Amino acid sequence: MDLDNIIYFDNSSTTKPCETAVKYINKQLSENWGNPSSLHTMGIYAEEELTKTRNCISGVISSRPDEIYFCGSGTEANNIAIMGAALANKRRGNKIITSAVEHHSVLETVDALEKQGFEVVKLKPDKNGRINEEQIYNAVDDKTILVSLMLVNNELGTIMPVESIKRAVIDKNSPAIIHCDSVQAFGKLPINVQKLGVDLLSASAHKIHGPKGVGFLYKKKNLHIETYIHGGGQEHGLRSGTESVPLISGLRGAVEELPNTALQLEKQLDLWNYAYNKLIDSGLASINSPIEHCLPYILNISVNGYRSETLLHFLDSKGIFVSSGSACAKGQKSHVMTECGFDNKRIDSALRLSFCRYNNKKEIERFCDVLKEACTTLRKAQK
Amino acid sequence: MDLDNIIYFDNSSTTKPCETAVKYINKQLSENWGNPSSLHTMGIYAEEELTKTRNCISGVISSRPDEIYFCGSGTEANNIAIMGAALANKRRGNKIITSAVEHHSVLETVDALEKQGFEVVKLKPDKNGRINEEQIYNAVDDKTILVSLMLVNNELGTIMPVESIKRAVIDKNSPAIIHCDSVQAFGKLPINVQKLGVDLLSASAHKIHGPKGVGFLYKKKNLHIETYIHGGGQEHGLRSGTESVPLISGLRGAVEELPNTALQLEKQLDLWNYAYNKLIDSGLASINSPIEHCLPYILNISVNGYRSETLLHFLDSKGIFVSSGSACAKGQKSHVMTECGFDNKRIDSALRLSFCRYNNKKEIERFCDVLKEACTTLRKAQK
Repeated sequence: MDLDNIIYFDNSSTTKPCETAVKYINKQLSENWGNPSSLHTMGIYAEEELTKTRNCISGVISSRPDEIYFCGSGTEANNIAIMGAALANKRRGNKIITSAVEHHSVLETVDALEKQGFEVVKLKPDKNGRINEEQIYNAVDDKTILVSLMLVNNELGTIMPVESIKRAVIDKNSPAIIHCDSVQAFGKLPINVQKLGVDLLSASAHKIHGPKGVGFLYKKKNLHIETYIHGGGQEHGLRSGTESVPLISGLRGAVEELPNTALQLEKQLDLWNYAYNKLIDSGLASINSPIEHCLPYILNISVNGYRSETLLHFLDSKGIFVSSGSACAKGQKSHVMTECGFDNKRIDSALRLSFCRYNNKKEIERFCDVLKEACTTLRKAQK
Repeated sequence: MDLDNIIYFDNSSTTKPCETAVKYINKQLSENWGNPSSLHTMGIYAEEELTKTRNCISGVISSRPDEIYFCGSGTEANNIAIMGAALANKRRGNKIITSAVEHHSVLETVDALEKQGFEVVKLKPDKNGRINEEQIYNAVDDKTILVSLMLVNNELGTIMPVESIKRAVIDKNSPAIIHCDSVQAFGKLPINVQKLGVDLLSASAHKIHGPKGVGFLYKKKNLHIETYIHGGGQEHGLRSGTESVPLISGLRGAVEELPNTALQLEKQLDLWNYAYNKLIDSGLASINSPIEHCLPYILNISVNGYRSETLLHFLDSKGIFVSSGSACAKGQKSHVMTECGFDNKRIDSALRLSFCRYNNKKEIERFCDVLKEACTTLRKAQK
């Protein structure tokens, strides 16, 4: 495949590893391949690499370095956080609050806890995919032991009021641990774990031009959660298994190469608005992403009268890559759009465009042209 | 560090990634960075890479390709296997059998199950770290739902009679699922999952010159185990989370570069014997590894009168890297040697030399010379 001439609008599925990430990975593979748990110099050098990445990430999210725990993926971070928090806190209550539009790694995990006897409340979103502060406030009570809410929805781009959970927890005298899945937000929105008021926060490298196979969990100092991945006690017992030094180094490379968040957000908003207006003007698409509270990296649209997969494959044949819903839910009907109350036609014709800092307006133009071509061609084919 | 002039005898902790592994990783990072779950061509190409590795591994262990599930580490594979098997099988019985000398990722996981109410039997090893067939046969009964036994012990190198479990299970009319942690054996001993009679088998890439951060679980076709890592349903629902295509490709690179197992075993045995005799002749060390049933990649010794860590640091200062016990149990007293009945002096002075195919006799000679130097120097220092 000629990767130089593709248009890749599927950055919420995964991103191209950036040069710094690749460089760092290679350095570790060839020059620093010791086991961080080894007591000798090679182990110490490998461990230093982990420390560097802990320092780097903690600088970005305003945590302490020793509050960063490396995992094998954002999914694993969510599993460890949710299972660990619920099991550690079960003597204090039984209620878990989340939203109905979380990523499957959250929903399936709370479902597993529900089978174990926990009461799970999945807050319903409005038509924009958003949970509001009042809903959260009303749901939290003194038996709530865990609140897990994503910062940005992966299908629509909706930004959630995560920062409002803390007040509800305090006011209601709740023992709840607060978890945030920030996989789609980390590196794109400013994140300050203090201001956000969260105890646990998950993120992944491969959504921000880092490698696939590594993520991290922020866990607030002195918060105890039960161990979910058992073994040699790496990552202070929270995630056993030899750390992937190369990938953790690659994660740092990706974080170091992140542009200024606020400036980049402006640029992305400009691109997002451009795409939004172009698509509205074309008369071909309806917009599913919200206008307010939307991360300008995700634009979910429906192309009325055409099935997502048909369009996806047409675009694919022209070197344009988008997603129907999220990549993780391969071909399944979107639970997010269903919960938002979109009708079946709209859901079946949805495409998620997800941008990165390397995308530009020319690509948007080309996308709109090819979308027009797709509609003409496919209409003809259907006749 | 000048890596060209080191002597690395800590290959059971981790190994140097081989050229093919590094090459494959880089190819994926730069040319094939799609998400295997994406429906478009980039997703398909990424998925093809996973298929190639499944084919490659299944060829080595005589399984079907679709019986291979990728994980983030050998530890994670053990967690998924043991938790999944015990929970899936709990209606049929309550007893779990393992050995007292397993890796922590097995021991801690069965301990967690014991807290949930399972009866856990940890078979005691003989002085060579071995569990015998009779012990296994006697322990298995019709309430046994899981037997988990390592193929090679990571501290002593002891090879376990894993292939005898199946007969016990059949004879005793046991519903037990058979799991084998083959992390130290995979790529070193011939493994045929049919002949071994196991339902589940764990392995890791970084012990065989692959990258850290990837392992696999073999799960026999049609065997059901409960999901432990919840999410988007990757790896047929057994291990959710975006697969690390680069590392999985790197795992394949490492497997492809493996020499012929039988021939290499002969070479390693020659090296092992050379080291064994040299050390005996030196009069400095006692041998803790067994002579029979020992993988000739691991030689555990005790240097009487000197603490492991003191020696380890002396050797380190001369560019020689060994381990005191296993890297995973950083500085802790060896549970393996304790279970084998070694006295404290012997345990406190233990060093594990673990070889790879790149080691040679000249390095053994140098090691013996430096060990002699260490003993002289440190004796002087102690005076």
